[in-house]
This record gives sequence, C-alpha cells and structure tokens, in this order.
Amino acid sequence: MQFDPATPVFRAHEGGKLTMRSKIALTDRQSLSLAYTPGVADVCTAIAGDGALARRYTWRSRLVAVVSDGTAVLGLGNIGPAAALPVMEGKAALFREFADIDAVPIVLDTTNADEIVRAVQHFAPSFGGINLEDISAPRCFDIEQRLRECLDIPVFHDDQHGTAVVVLAALRNAAAITERTLGHLRVVISGAGAAGVACTKILLAAGVRDITVADSRGIVHSGRFDLTPVKAELASLTNYAGQTGSLVDALAGADVFVGVSAGVVDEKSVAQMAPKAIIFALANPTPEVAPEVAHRHAAVVATGRSDLPNQINNVLAFPGIFAGAFDAGARAITENMKLAAAAAIGEVVAGELAVDRIVPTPFDPRVAPAVAAAVAAQAHADGVT
Amino acid sequence: MQFDPATPVFRAHEGGKLTMRSKIALTDRQSLSLAYTPGVADVCTAIAGDGALARRYTWRSRLVAVVSDGTAVLGLGNIGPAAALPVMEGKAALFREFADIDAVPIVLDTTNADEIVRAVQHFAPSFGGINLEDISAPRCFDIEQRLRECLDIPVFHDDQHGTAVVVLAALRNAAAITERTLGHLRVVISGAGAAGVACTKILLAAGVRDITVADSRGIVHSGRFDLTPVKAELASLTNYAGQTGSLVDALAGADVFVGVSAGVVDEKSVAQMAPKAIIFALANPTPEVAPEVAHRHAAVVATGRSDLPNQINNVLAFPGIFAGAFDAGARAITENMKLAAAAAIGEVVAGELAVDRIVPTPFDPRVAPAVAAAVAAQAHADGVT
Repeated sequence: MQFDPATPVFRAHEGGKLTMRSKIALTDRQSLSLAYTPGVADVCTAIAGDGALARRYTWRSRLVAVVSDGTAVLGLGNIGPAAALPVMEGKAALFREFADIDAVPIVLDTTNADEIVRAVQHFAPSFGGINLEDISAPRCFDIEQRLRECLDIPVFHDDQHGTAVVVLAALRNAAAITERTLGHLRVVISGAGAAGVACTKILLAAGVRDITVADSRGIVHSGRFDLTPVKAELASLTNYAGQTGSLVDALAGADVFVGVSAGVVDEKSVAQMAPKAIIFALANPTPEVAPEVAHRHAAVVATGRSDLPNQINNVLAFPGIFAGAFDAGARAITENMKLAAAAAIGEVVAGELAVDRIVPTPFDPRVAPAVAAAVAAQAHADGVT
Repeated sequence: MQFDPATPVFRAHEGGKLTMRSKIALTDRQSLSLAYTPGVADVCTAIAGDGALARRYTWRSRLVAVVSDGTAVLGLGNIGPAAALPVMEGKAALFREFADIDAVPIVLDTTNADEIVRAVQHFAPSFGGINLEDISAPRCFDIEQRLRECLDIPVFHDDQHGTAVVVLAALRNAAAITERTLGHLRVVISGAGAAGVACTKILLAAGVRDITVADSRGIVHSGRFDLTPVKAELASLTNYAGQTGSLVDALAGADVFVGVSAGVVDEKSVAQMAPKAIIFALANPTPEVAPEVAHRHAAVVATGRSDLPNQINNVLAFPGIFAGAFDAGARAITENMKLAAAAAIGEVVAGELAVDRIVPTPFDPRVAPAVAAAVAAQAHADGVT
C-alpha cells in the first residue's frame, strides 16, 4: 500500500478521528466559576473526603483507556506506539458508537512488561476501565494478570477475551443449528497466541471437553520441550489423548476448526473433518480456509470478514461488556461475566438461527444493551460491585 | 463546605465535565472499513514507514495531557489524584474553550518524581504536549526539567510559567502606565514555590534587575542554611544587596509587590512601599493584601480574583502558548516563546491601557490568537520546529 493522501482512508484520518468536548460551555465568568475555580474546589474537597464520589462527579466512571504498546497491531506486527495510534483511535470511536462510552487511546513507548504494568498502574486513577489492545503474546497474559491483581477497575485484553466471547457465542449457536451440544464437539484451535489461549479457556469453561490446540510447530502436547509456560498450561488443559503431529493430523475427524492464526489450511485437510463440520476461519483479511473451500466441506462457516455472513467481530462483545461493568460499578470483569456476555450475544439471534446467521451482525442495535444487561447482572451475582 | 448534591456546582459536575467524540460516525460497514479495519491498516503502515505522518493522521498533534499527581491542588494541598481530577477536567475544558485544543486529564497515583517522569515518558507517544498541573514544589522543577530533556514535545508546568507569563505582561503594562521601565523597578516577590521561582526568572529575563524574594522564613539570601537547591539558585540570582530579614523589611521602599503565596501583608508594611507602588496580590480566594488596603497605597493593583479588575489569570497564557507551539510543530516551549507570549498578552490592551486595565480580561477573544501567533513565530525563530 502506497501512502496516498488523496485516498478516502487517508482523507478520513486527516487530523485524527477523535475530539474532546466540554459538556459545559465556559463562555462567561459564571460558568467558569462553576466548572473551574472557585466552584470546583467544593467537588475536589468532597472527593478528598469520600473517594467514592469520584464515580459520580468525574468522567472517569465511564471512561476506558485503550492501552497498547504497538507490538501486535492488526496483522502488521510490532509497528510501535505512534503507528498503532490510528487503531486505538478507531477502537475509542467504537466504544462511543456502540456503547456511548468515553475512551482515550494511550500508546506506550515501552514493551517491557514491568514498565507497562507500572505505567498503567500510575495513570489508572484517571480511568474507569482498561482495555488492553494489540499487545503481543505471551507478554499480554502476564500484563493483564498483574493489572487485574493490582487495580480495582475492570481490565480486559480484548484480543483475548473479546474474540473468545464471540467465538463461544457463535459456536454454541453453530452447535445448536447442527443439533449438537458443546460437550460433544471435538474442537481444533489453530493458534496459541492471545486469541487461541482465551478461546480454549472460555470453551472449556462453557462445557467443551475435547480441544486440541496447534501452533506454528504443530499440536501442543505435554511432551514438547519448546512450550512457554502459557502453552504448557494449555497442554495440560487440552489434548487428553496426547496426540502429536501437525494441525492437519489434528483436523482428521474433528467437528470444529477455529482459526485464530494466519496459517493456511488446504482443502484435503478440511475434507478429513467429521460430517457437519463447523469452520471458523478468523484470520483477516485472508481466512485460514478459503470460504468457498470451507463451504464445500462444512455445515457452518464463519470468518472475520465484514463482506461475508457470520462475521465474528469483537465489536459484538467489548462495548457491552464495559457498559455492563460500568452500569454495575464492577471492580473487575470475571470469567462468569464473559460467559454471560457470550450467552447474551448468542441469544440475540436465537429466534432467527440459520447456518448463515449464527451471530448478530456488528450493527445489530440489540447486541450491546443485551450484553450490558447480562454482564451487569452477573457482576452483581459475582459480588464484584 | 458541605457536600450538597443539589447545589449548582455539584449539579454541573454530575457525570464529569468532559466527553469524547468520534469525528466519523461508525454507523455502517463502509465507515467502519475506513476508520477501522481494514482501512486503518494503510494509515498504520504509512506512519510505521514515516513517523512524521503521525502528526497529520492522528489526533495527538493537537492533544494535551493535563498531568497532575494531586499534590498541590488549588489552595487545597495534597488531596491525591482522584480528588484532583475535577480540576484537571476543568483545565481540559479550558483548552477546548479558549484554543480549540483537545486535552485529556491524566492523574497519577504516585508522588515519586522518578516514577512520574517514567510514567509520563511512557505514555507521551499518545500526546502532542504535556501540561503539568498542581504538582508541589520543589519536585515540580525537577520533574519538568527532566521531561523537557527526554521528550520531543512541549512540556509546560502551568503553575510556574503560566503565572509568570501573565505577571510579566501585567507588570510591563503597569510600569508603562506609571511611566517607568522594568529595569528601574525594585520588585519584591512573596513566595518561592512554583510560581515565585518562575516569576523571578521570567522578570529577570525580561530586564528587571532588582528582585528580592521572600519565603515563609523571610528574605531568601545566600547566607541562609535552609535553602533547597532551587532556592539557593534564587538567592544567587536575586537580592544583590544581600538583605536579610523579613518580607516586611524587603517591602520598605519597594516599587512592586508580587504575592504568589498565601501569606498576609498588613497595611503598615504596604504603606512603606515607594510612591506609585504596584501591588499584584495573587493568592486566591484571599489576596495577600486586601484590595481596599492596596488601593490606598498603590497606583496599580491586580489580583487573581474574577470579580475585580486586572485579573491575573493563567488562562490568558496557556491556551495560546500550546496553540502556537502546535501550529508551529514546536518540539519544546523555549524561554523566548514564553517572553513572546507575555509581550503578546500585554500588547492586546496596549492601546487601551488604564490602571484598571493592565491585562485583558480572561474572555477577551483577541488574546489566544495573538499569543498563538507570537509563540509560533518565536518557535520558528528559535529553531525548535
């Protein structure tokens, strides 16, 4: 792609995509004395006396920091903070559009996990929630875990959990329409990065029992000596049969393929899957399995592409998840809240299920409110409010 | 002040004062593919190839972080980050109102200078400029200095330089209207904190020669053993006569009193000042010299209060200073740029000078554009663009 300022994409990005507004016009002495000195001192004093009032009298209670170090941006890889900023601005715009939530991009000039954790911890009092974005694996697992432990606001790595929540919603509906249940599916996940790990865990939590994960070196099994701690944990949670070999070996007889890598799967491998196969080929812009190939061998096909039906897109999840957490005043986003979000997404189309309609479209206005309500209710049930 | 949610101040603060907007409505697949994936990847790739394009294609080029650790908030002192947030939201709103600049409050949960510097350094790629706010002395000097050295974007501690710029503008006009020049004034500054130090330095740079500074322990002189490094530097720059004693001793025969502390000066001391005295009593809400007392003994009186003439308010300076720096693409705010800002502020009312009109009012629409133009021109002249 050449840089051409005359193209619609560059024209749309001129000057950036976000703008900050004051809700109060500061056009005269009276408004200034209410919103700024001397009036604001009363609000400061009140919050100093009772920190809980910050939730009511500052914008942070519904404000998300979209935090990235620019190491795993889209399919572009480690392009650094400045080049990552347009994606984070877009993400902030999605929060506004889909859940009426304020969001600010924060890109960081360090890729050191300790430094990232410390920086986020330091600026966290400015925000009501932290959406981690496009941080490469395996650092993303450690960073999220440590921030969850030290902060009392929701922390959510969307590349993990946003994808996982929508995959679960889609898989449950795909199973339903092919008259099976999650517990009877043999699932193969291609990719053991942020999305692969999170998909594995949420599917296990939702009742899937038989999962095999493959990374670029083949099936993840406990006999491998090249596993990171996160992949070693995956090996212990999956692949009970102790299968070794390649992704192709794993696919033979499998009911479900979930692609969250960029690898390519050929038609011969897909043809060996079980009858009524389900294929989620989520790599963007080129799905792991070409859609026309997938349709020749599978009962249900989903991709990440907006120009095809069954688009598995995180935007179905993260706006409603943060909205629900904020509505409930939740201090964290629990595993149950993610499961509740997946259930809510799937239920939106439960009455209109079809093989090309296993998830709502990204612009379905029913989704975010349904997710928010389910997540808020679960937050109360989990006692994290 | 009791917390009463029914008062206008608390009603104005409900839900906070700021909101983030997307400039592009993401209401359909086409807009989403321009502002987000897949289109945004072209912009990311272009910036990854040429970092300078971030200025054109992200919002950060005109985005200020209003950064505070909550240690010196208004007259309230060290109230912490959450309680400081309403002030920082107000400051961000002022950037929008007075210079059409985007600003985001970032309050920090640490008061350690090293940690503050590191945190700001880490999130700096998200912003086009850093406005430090309400950070207590003497840490504020060190923090600003180190950030100026390590960042290539404007860093400006407003409590220091905003005040100093407006004081210089006001003093030059006060001298003019009483038919004197800066070089012939004997100036006494009460307060050796952020504002006092910056006022001293800018007045010296502008041609004032005779300055004596007093802190809560009296006149700052090089014989004192209790001076911080910053105050020791002040002692070497001021008080050439080596005077010792109290603020009252310093005031005898002085032409100018600049109060940037909270101390009270009695009428007897003020009465000992030279004829045609100039009194800037800037403590808020209670000026160091009661205005009616000041008027009995001085030719020109200014305060920080919005209900009196000659209000010395930082809002005359910081919006135009950042706007000018952004317009020029300046990597820093130089001493010359601050002097240029002071000159521009003063010149706005040069044709209409009066003892009760030595500075423009905060809402004078001529100020910010004049300051921005002068600052941008000086940035080019100083070679920092």
